[in-house]
Amino acid sequence: MSTAWTSRYAARAKAITSSAIRELLKVTERPGMISFAGGLPAPEVFPTQRFQEACHKILSEQATSALQYGLTEGYTPLREFLANNMARYGIKAKAENVLITSGSQQALDLIGKLFVNPGDRILVEAPTYLGALQAFNIYGAEYLSVASDQNGLRTDLLEQPLRSGPKFIYVVPNFHNPAGTTLPTERRHELVLLADKYGIPIVEDDPYGQLRYEGEHLPSLVVLDRDNLRRDSGYSIGNVLYLSTFSKTLAPGLRLGWIVAPPEIVSKLAQLKQGADLHTSTFSQFVAYEVARDGFLDQHIKLIRQVYRERRDVMLQALQEFFPPEITWTHPQGGLFIWVTLPEGLDMKTVFNSALEQNVAFVPGDSFYARDLHNSNAREGNRHMRLNFSNAAPEKIREGIRRLSEALKSQLPTKSRSEQPLSV
Amino acid sequence: MSTAWTSRYAARAKAITSSAIRELLKVTERPGMISFAGGLPAPEVFPTQRFQEACHKILSEQATSALQYGLTEGYTPLREFLANNMARYGIKAKAENVLITSGSQQALDLIGKLFVNPGDRILVEAPTYLGALQAFNIYGAEYLSVASDQNGLRTDLLEQPLRSGPKFIYVVPNFHNPAGTTLPTERRHELVLLADKYGIPIVEDDPYGQLRYEGEHLPSLVVLDRDNLRRDSGYSIGNVLYLSTFSKTLAPGLRLGWIVAPPEIVSKLAQLKQGADLHTSTFSQFVAYEVARDGFLDQHIKLIRQVYRERRDVMLQALQEFFPPEITWTHPQGGLFIWVTLPEGLDMKTVFNSALEQNVAFVPGDSFYARDLHNSNAREGNRHMRLNFSNAAPEKIREGIRRLSEALKSQLPTKSRSEQPLSV
Repeated sequence: MSTAWTSRYAARAKAITSSAIRELLKVTERPGMISFAGGLPAPEVFPTQRFQEACHKILSEQATSALQYGLTEGYTPLREFLANNMARYGIKAKAENVLITSGSQQALDLIGKLFVNPGDRILVEAPTYLGALQAFNIYGAEYLSVASDQNGLRTDLLEQPLRSGPKFIYVVPNFHNPAGTTLPTERRHELVLLADKYGIPIVEDDPYGQLRYEGEHLPSLVVLDRDNLRRDSGYSIGNVLYLSTFSKTLAPGLRLGWIVAPPEIVSKLAQLKQGADLHTSTFSQFVAYEVARDGFLDQHIKLIRQVYRERRDVMLQALQEFFPPEITWTHPQGGLFIWVTLPEGLDMKTVFNSALEQNVAFVPGDSFYARDLHNSNAREGNRHMRLNFSNAAPEKIREGIRRLSEALKSQLPTKSRSEQPLSV
Repeated sequence: MSTAWTSRYAARAKAITSSAIRELLKVTERPGMISFAGGLPAPEVFPTQRFQEACHKILSEQATSALQYGLTEGYTPLREFLANNMARYGIKAKAENVLITSGSQQALDLIGKLFVNPGDRILVEAPTYLGALQAFNIYGAEYLSVASDQNGLRTDLLEQPLRSGPKFIYVVPNFHNPAGTTLPTERRHELVLLADKYGIPIVEDDPYGQLRYEGEHLPSLVVLDRDNLRRDSGYSIGNVLYLSTFSKTLAPGLRLGWIVAPPEIVSKLAQLKQGADLHTSTFSQFVAYEVARDGFLDQHIKLIRQVYRERRDVMLQALQEFFPPEITWTHPQGGLFIWVTLPEGLDMKTVFNSALEQNVAFVPGDSFYARDLHNSNAREGNRHMRLNFSNAAPEKIREGIRRLSEALKSQLPTKSRSEQPLSV
């Protein structure tokens, strides 16, 4: 339908793309489908009873504040709670360092709005989180992609792209989406030191950091950056913006995330947020605070870890059992995703359609690669699939992986199959 | 504090301004202050009990959906509810025409993002809603301001600025913020016809439309635009984007607004919204739907009208009683604001500080004028103040206006005062 509006899009509208995943989710809602496509938490572990109590208390005692306009920066007790909570992970923030956002996605959008001029290059991992690409694309971002391996970003490849002066580095160090990798401590140090050496700041996106199922917590980049300062080595403070969210620990439907930043940056981002949505839902913020307080959040995260660890293990076990040996995958220490690598020569579109016929869905890997200046990552994505293990129940996970293996086997070259007869 | 970030702002960051009002609100929170500065609803009429019931029901019956990720376009039953609700005002929309936004402010931001190239001119009223300026400024908007009188936008002055090809027209036809004016039916027709003649689309911002305290509802621009179509006169369909919100009828703390638009525009805006915040709080949407349904919203709006009508009348009465005769003001038929015009020669900054000394606050008018290309509106704002009558209780309103009159009288030239001795 043509209207006076449709001929009037701004130049930046050319960068509008709908997330492949969100479009996919519509297909995967059909009955009988087992979907590993989304990144949805398990709804059966939402702390419903605690939400009931929180809503009742707030509406009995604080309704006039909880339903009224609020400060753009966020609900002060929630900001203080988050500052205290993060302190246990070594992140030394005060309430004034915390800006509440409408989910982490808004944090990415505000960062794009404040920092990205058309043509600015952002250094990202290959693969990277596609929501970040969606947020930055609209401001005209270009990308410098740096390869990852099973330990995440290859810091040995960083120096050259850093020398070419990207606007900032965007990185997901813990339980990467989509790759499931965790950046080792050594690489974290190296990344922070190199970024500082070249004066390039870092966005550290950490939605999953608390969902660790094995091993020890590793220090955040924002902590290492501060450690540098404390050692008085002359490194700058505030080189790392840290992002996190309640979406994976309490409930994504609240749309609550936050940015940790120096006060000057918080102030600029808050001014942008004023123009974008005035402030995040006061009611959501009051409810989240009331649910999370008095140790409940930590206790609840323990439950989530237990449930998701089991699901990860069931998926890893099923992959081992059903998948042909020429296919490999990551072993995530936490988070929501396993990243599968297929042998060369498979056509991902055919694999995907064959999977849908088997009533199982995943996200093809190509969505997670930034089109960089040399377009060198375009083909890489075709060998990967992202599998989510948090949303489906264990018995569904096992059945879904079995179905997926059928879909894959029907596409694998016969030669390859006959070479590995013992594995099936 | 200098960091690697602070030297890296994008060019558009120069357009960042904090709303004068939101900064002001911090000052006006001091004890004893009577504030007419905000645009806050009366918290004592929030339907708290109904919210209690809604939250309880949702968390008992639909918690797994209400706390989960949702569709970017919004919660389908809420979109259907809004479509049906608007039909009674002649707005013929289907659910697919409705995009749920995180308050009307996000609607303005998404429209700026989709349509405004740096340097594009937007035709606005003088004065205009400053939240719109804040949203559009960041995308590099310039402005063509058209004067208003006591009946709103002067449509007799439209033809020349329309000829110069603005990107769109932004207008608040009902109970204008800040001017309190209502555009008469004839001017509405004229505006829609002229816009169509020159092929310039319209953004109709209608946050207060249902808060009418006297007279008859007037047809929306989006309705007149459609009427043109039904008369088969060859006018385009979809020339008007219509915006509204629950902030003044249910509760601003939910951050729920909506845009009515042709499906193609809804789709583009939804793709931008994905990158901006994925979707608006599912929980807020479920709660608003559960609160509003089954006729409650209409019933509640009747109560709000009654409470606000009384407050408006108390303020008008107090203005009549206390203010010197050389000061004039609008008589709003609805909404939240009265617009006061002072005689020339007063220094608004001194008046404002004198009011604060009397423990009463308002918003100086200059915030509401776009800096247009010829900067011709810069001085005009200095003669105005915006007074909100929805937030304070009637006895406070009367006392606040008395205090304000003291502040004003202390600033008025003695000559003027002695000329009008009978009025005090």
